Amino acid sequence: MLRISDDGFEKAFARMVRNRRESDRQVGRDVAAIINEVRERGDDALVDYTARFDNHGLGDDGNWQISAEECRAAYSALDADLRDSLEMAASRIRAYHEGQLPDDRDYTDDIGMRLGARWNAVDAAGLYVPGGRAAYPSSLLMNAIPAKVAGVGRLVVTTPTPKGEVNPLVLAAAHIAGVDEIWRVGGAQAVAALAYGTHRIGKVDVIAGPGNAWVAEAKRQLYGVVGIDMVAGPSEILVIADANNDPEWIAADLLSQAEHDPTSQSILITDSESLARQVEDAIDLALMKLPTAKTAKASWDAHGLIVIVDTLDQAPTLSDRLAAEHVELMVDEPQVLFDRLRHAGSVFLGRHTPEAVGDYIAGPNHVLPTGRRARFASGLSVLDFMKRTSFIDASEAALAAIGPAAVRLAEAEGLPAHALSISTRLK
Amino acid sequence: MLRISDDGFEKAFARMVRNRRESDRQVGRDVAAIINEVRERGDDALVDYTARFDNHGLGDDGNWQISAEECRAAYSALDADLRDSLEMAASRIRAYHEGQLPDDRDYTDDIGMRLGARWNAVDAAGLYVPGGRAAYPSSLLMNAIPAKVAGVGRLVVTTPTPKGEVNPLVLAAAHIAGVDEIWRVGGAQAVAALAYGTHRIGKVDVIAGPGNAWVAEAKRQLYGVVGIDMVAGPSEILVIADANNDPEWIAADLLSQAEHDPTSQSILITDSESLARQVEDAIDLALMKLPTAKTAKASWDAHGLIVIVDTLDQAPTLSDRLAAEHVELMVDEPQVLFDRLRHAGSVFLGRHTPEAVGDYIAGPNHVLPTGRRARFASGLSVLDFMKRTSFIDASEAALAAIGPAAVRLAEAEGLPAHALSISTRLK
Repeated sequence: MLRISDDGFEKAFARMVRNRRESDRQVGRDVAAIINEVRERGDDALVDYTARFDNHGLGDDGNWQISAEECRAAYSALDADLRDSLEMAASRIRAYHEGQLPDDRDYTDDIGMRLGARWNAVDAAGLYVPGGRAAYPSSLLMNAIPAKVAGVGRLVVTTPTPKGEVNPLVLAAAHIAGVDEIWRVGGAQAVAALAYGTHRIGKVDVIAGPGNAWVAEAKRQLYGVVGIDMVAGPSEILVIADANNDPEWIAADLLSQAEHDPTSQSILITDSESLARQVEDAIDLALMKLPTAKTAKASWDAHGLIVIVDTLDQAPTLSDRLAAEHVELMVDEPQVLFDRLRHAGSVFLGRHTPEAVGDYIAGPNHVLPTGRRARFASGLSVLDFMKRTSFIDASEAALAAIGPAAVRLAEAEGLPAHALSISTRLK
Repeated sequence: MLRISDDGFEKAFARMVRNRRESDRQVGRDVAAIINEVRERGDDALVDYTARFDNHGLGDDGNWQISAEECRAAYSALDADLRDSLEMAASRIRAYHEGQLPDDRDYTDDIGMRLGARWNAVDAAGLYVPGGRAAYPSSLLMNAIPAKVAGVGRLVVTTPTPKGEVNPLVLAAAHIAGVDEIWRVGGAQAVAALAYGTHRIGKVDVIAGPGNAWVAEAKRQLYGVVGIDMVAGPSEILVIADANNDPEWIAADLLSQAEHDPTSQSILITDSESLARQVEDAIDLALMKLPTAKTAKASWDAHGLIVIVDTLDQAPTLSDRLAAEHVELMVDEPQVLFDRLRHAGSVFLGRHTPEAVGDYIAGPNHVLPTGRRARFASGLSVLDFMKRTSFIDASEAALAAIGPAAVRLAEAEGLPAHALSISTRLK
């Protein structure tokens, strides 16, 4: 617990802002070696790594992929309530992302020059889906639906299936989202296969989706060979709360991030020391009953933080420095605070908007910038699966109007062929 | 010269598409070491590298920065025609980019849930401006104006000044664009200083701007610590032309890319072998007079290509595989071909739109994806200097309508604290 009025506050808070809780250099070296192997040995490298890391043998064609039929069967076998919940989530996510589709531009300006820009989806996108404990159907929906709304023709999932096991919920979500291919490959090797392609797996243009430190590092290293959604780190929540809150609600919200991973971070900023104490007690109580208590406690003990401010007026400045992935505004007039925030992945306004409602079903994407990256990055959107081509169409008269100025600039820059390409048309 | 009807065409064309003409691993290691030094030793490292690489001594405060007064003086000293040309370019670039400003979203859906997204500029952006031969005022305008249109408060230029020399045209452009700080530092060390900050140079959120292989690699390695505009490679032009063209115009267009750098690439696709021969001759002729002939010839000899197709109907498919930075459509009805293109950085329609008009003055950005990256990347825009915060505001009734489904999904995913944060509010 830090008090803004304490002497050491600035130093302690600055240290918290700097601490990225992210991966080390050895991961970078391991991943570079894996990428190199997959690039050179293709499917053979995938067979070797999958045997070693996933204890799964990739042999004949049959067991490399999970078929559309298997996904449909998983969907049909779902409990009806759960299936309806997934469908409701998919339809709300789809509706929100359809509103992100960008408009093309095409206009003619005052000198008669036609200018504009046209958006197109990428041809193919790859989605990494973690295996085991972190295989989340919600994550598949959040990644796959924007790609499909963007108009991506070929949507490829890679996912590790340790000992051959698959998560039926993920398959059901793939069925709902209309995934085109699913490959039983995981880790950095899967990302490399998506980026460079192998004999079996066709390469893609953009790779999205969450993963462990190796997967995240592989995406970072392959950025430029393909587009990637973002460099992701551990999850974060910042709750800004006045005295007038139920401490159990806030405790649950803080723990909902903490239960993801021991490196997750949960922060409470409040002007009420009494609320702060009650939240601490509520967390201790909740941890006694929570099945995920081990992870949540590890995260809360190592990275949890409560900041006591003199007045909530001080909260937006602190919040912008943290640039947290998720910011909850648990106050009567959240809009007032929201208007003063500049850097946050997603903001949850008011006491009845727990962050988890955004994880699943509200509609906006739950793939959001972490590690202070909301200073410059945005959550996943349809734009991550599209690109823009600008265009220029000059009439003879329009070229005559502005060509001479361009010739002058080209000559001043010492680029005579640039100048010539215009001047030869002005003769 | 390749003919699409020849036996070896597919193999030769595929090799051309694969060839990225990009940097090697040694650059990666050198850059990693430089970044590390700057991160650990800050300004001292900058002093050392600047003495070594730029032969320029950074000593007292006075010579680290180029002042706004120096920029204003450079602007005032410009030849009036050149100044007017720069101003015309700036005003057209500004007008085009103002049209890119995104709309916020804020709506309430059918269950009474308020959803939306809000765009903000980043706080600070860094622009790398090359020194020496490649110091282009047009490049400064193309990078700085979108940042200022986006609303970036602090716009920082770093540029090497070998032996202390500066380019007055670049300073004049900085004056026009409203750059806030200019630091006399270049190379990977400048990019590292912008990303991590030093005692003198405050860190930024996004780094844009062209540079040599070391600068490009530094940006790639620091992606994630900061946002970057893109991973850039050598420039490219693809001209698609029918028989009915002046070969001198096409020769000049091809050479306008070739003169940038020996690694640039110029490609002509035409259905007229006779035009192809005439263009080859016109290039030879132009090279005899061109002051930049040495570079242009090296590029044309090493990477130039003419593809003869049976019909221009075949051109869009080849063009999409190349996904070129610049595509010129030198035909009577360019729109017909344009409608069939999916992957290109920028398209220049019709015989009176030489690519160079887009480099300087048309309005759209000349910072465009290279190295086949138009498959997934877009040219520089105001969006590169902005980020989006999504938001959710649930009423008690809205939470009641969708909360139970979210609880079900959270439980199915094995995240009980997520479920608890919603269910505790539904009581």
